[in-house]
Amino acid sequence: MKLSEKLASLNIVLPALTGTFGTYVPAKRVGNLVYLSGQLPMKDGKLLASGPVPSKCSVEDAKIAARQCVINALGAVESLIPGEIDSITQMVRVGAFVASDADFTQQPQVANGASDFLIELMGDAGKHVRTAVGTNVLPLGASVEIEFVFEVR
Amino acid sequence: MKLSEKLASLNIVLPALTGTFGTYVPAKRVGNLVYLSGQLPMKDGKLLASGPVPSKCSVEDAKIAARQCVINALGAVESLIPGEIDSITQMVRVGAFVASDADFTQQPQVANGASDFLIELMGDAGKHVRTAVGTNVLPLGASVEIEFVFEVR
Amino acid sequence: MKLSEKLASLNIVLPALTGTFGTYVPAKRVGNLVYLSGQLPMKDGKLLASGPVPSKCSVEDAKIAARQCVINALGAVESLIPGEIDSITQMVRVGAFVASDADFTQQPQVANGASDFLIELMGDAGKHVRTAVGTNVLPLGASVEIEFVFEVR
Repeated sequence: MKLSEKLASLNIVLPALTGTFGTYVPAKRVGNLVYLSGQLPMKDGKLLASGPVPSKCSVEDAKIAARQCVINALGAVESLIPGEIDSITQMVRVGAFVASDADFTQQPQVANGASDFLIELMGDAGKHVRTAVGTNVLPLGASVEIEFVFEVR
Repeated sequence: MKLSEKLASLNIVLPALTGTFGTYVPAKRVGNLVYLSGQLPMKDGKLLASGPVPSKCSVEDAKIAARQCVINALGAVESLIPGEIDSITQMVRVGAFVASDADFTQQPQVANGASDFLIELMGDAGKHVRTAVGTNVLPLGASVEIEFVFEVR
Repeated sequence: MKLSEKLASLNIVLPALTGTFGTYVPAKRVGNLVYLSGQLPMKDGKLLASGPVPSKCSVEDAKIAARQCVINALGAVESLIPGEIDSITQMVRVGAFVASDADFTQQPQVANGASDFLIELMGDAGKHVRTAVGTNVLPLGASVEIEFVFEVR
């Protein structure tokens, strides 16, 4: 099944570009790799999750936010080059930053919200290397920010 | 206009290598990509901006520091391979870390100090994907650290 | 000397895969580059170093932990593709995150634990670009997490 068909089967509509883009761009292709800018968990113009985990945002909510970052990344690819998402041959890398209380150490659990969803969407081709780290604060106060590298045909 | 000419027109003299390099190198080419080490906002041997934003460093000063990171990155490329900067075909990626107070959420504004300057220098070729995140502390107490990936001919 | 021989001469036995891998993978090859997931300083199933530097973990212990991240990265490559480590032609990139007290600014010194070891193992081919930053907290409470990009034949 094509990725676009898989998304449709899950009733997922890719958003138009989210975030304010000025001098940087949401996605850039170099050779067969598409680099994505760090994605925030915006949905309908609002952050799905804000503040450090878990004092201001539960692990479960942060996982949902991480899943939204994937949707926004695919939306960014599709907005730039319509049809491009069906050219994705595999995921390469996920870099997840999780706004964290100083004693929160389950960043990988949050990042699984993105990783599990990529496998759901793409099967084995969705497997990727991953770096998940904590940080004290993220842009706009988001609980999660995720960057991606895809490989395309 | 060549990048070297553009820099000259702005009276920008690229610095020799900044920072202490031991076992790592400031820049490395693989295929058509040049990866740069994380650049600190050193100028004439001193940090342009130190401490978290905004309690110890204003957003404006941090933006100027981010711009300096670009200059240092270009200086690193030029020091390693004289003339190489004129082989840059496009910017690919900017990764900005901003030392931040826990309630500071305008990291993208700081990173614009680098992004806007890249467009000023290179026009459309300067457009890049970007990840900007906060962190509690950076090497030497710098307010900003930025890594880059360039594409070269 | 082959890398596998060099490791043997230092009495270093590469570990089997460390960490829990679900939907992500420890290493992925794209073209001639092998991307590694962020490595924690696990040894025999336990973290070598935990908590922020220096209040909970000395700089010296954090350096040893950074060295272990290299061993785990090589172990991950070898576990996935036996013999692959002898195909490594050069190191490309090291990205080091150091759990840091707010006033600790010697992250590069910690990262040297990885960088110096790469040179010891590989000579000039071990030279790499590097980004070292602080953060308030890392997965499992680790003091260090390091990601790598290798070039292979």
